[in-house]
Amino acid sequence: MVMSPGAIARYAGAVMSRWKPDADGRLIEAALVLFDRQGYEDTTVADLAASAGLTRRTFFRYFSDKREVLFSGAGELERLWVNAVTGAPKGCGAMVAMEAGFAAVAEVFTERHSFAKIRARIIAANPELQERELIKLEKLASSVAAALEERGIEAGRAALAAYTGVQIFHLAFARWIAQDDPGGLLPLMHESLEELREVLTS
Amino acid sequence: MVMSPGAIARYAGAVMSRWKPDADGRLIEAALVLFDRQGYEDTTVADLAASAGLTRRTFFRYFSDKREVLFSGAGELERLWVNAVTGAPKGCGAMVAMEAGFAAVAEVFTERHSFAKIRARIIAANPELQERELIKLEKLASSVAAALEERGIEAGRAALAAYTGVQIFHLAFARWIAQDDPGGLLPLMHESLEELREVLTS
Repeated sequence: MVMSPGAIARYAGAVMSRWKPDADGRLIEAALVLFDRQGYEDTTVADLAASAGLTRRTFFRYFSDKREVLFSGAGELERLWVNAVTGAPKGCGAMVAMEAGFAAVAEVFTERHSFAKIRARIIAANPELQERELIKLEKLASSVAAALEERGIEAGRAALAAYTGVQIFHLAFARWIAQDDPGGLLPLMHESLEELREVLTS
Repeated sequence: MVMSPGAIARYAGAVMSRWKPDADGRLIEAALVLFDRQGYEDTTVADLAASAGLTRRTFFRYFSDKREVLFSGAGELERLWVNAVTGAPKGCGAMVAMEAGFAAVAEVFTERHSFAKIRARIIAANPELQERELIKLEKLASSVAAALEERGIEAGRAALAAYTGVQIFHLAFARWIAQDDPGGLLPLMHESLEELREVLTS
């Protein structure tokens, strides 16, 4: 799906105003539109603030740099996944506890398919952003592993389950944004994990 | 194992002079010693060049920035893994072809245990270096996946096998440098993969 800049702005505006109509939401919206239209490198914090009708000073109340605007959801994702692991049925194994986070994570992206597509396109165009994306995933995996260890799962198994889970999320996410169907992130995650089981044991 | 700066320098010198006694080898050695002793942030390209008895200009003939000095082996690793995948027996499955690279990769690190320990400590102390490390692993996985696809393996399966393999390498490597025994990276990789199979199917 190719969207015109105007359509992106309207779409992002609609998504974002449903999502976060406040200052940080407007900054995220501005980043999505401007990074995609004029490039990440060529967009300044001042551009983002102006586009959101805010001052540079307000920008820095919300984000430490322009890169962080694209990663504001990482903390929420991590909290949700960790909470799901912590709340999984008592005595279940490492994979079942890890997978308990899949639904919570997929839920976050409901109605954000076009947003995710645009964001992925911006990130793919910039190695600096790819690096930040990868370190956020690493941090996510490390937190999920810690939550598994809290359940009494041995550290090695916890790491294997958590890093594999986040890897599956990462690969399924790429499949999800490559398709036109905005639904189906959760089934894609489960399918990818099943496929991994099959690949590993065939 | 805690090494004094002097011991590190002697050790690194010994390893490096066996490994790469030329200008880029001396720069890698200087980086290992200076980044570890005085910190990555506080070491300049001029410091590295001076420590290696070279000019800044010579430095830039070998490396684009001071960060790259720690990642000069990434290309070799990738070539070895890809070649092993390409040369795996005809008709073998995705995992067998992917695993063909394990031995080649482990071989690279023979006699580099202390080097790897120091390098890991430097990287762990600096988020910018962690990001670079992660993007190199991502690139490695992507190249291994491409090599699997070249063998006629479907793209989804190729990605799952390759990303899992690199993840296993990453986790086994962390285990390897955490232990005192300099041998055994290859068995740790195979063990970690077996453990993943077990975790995934239990």
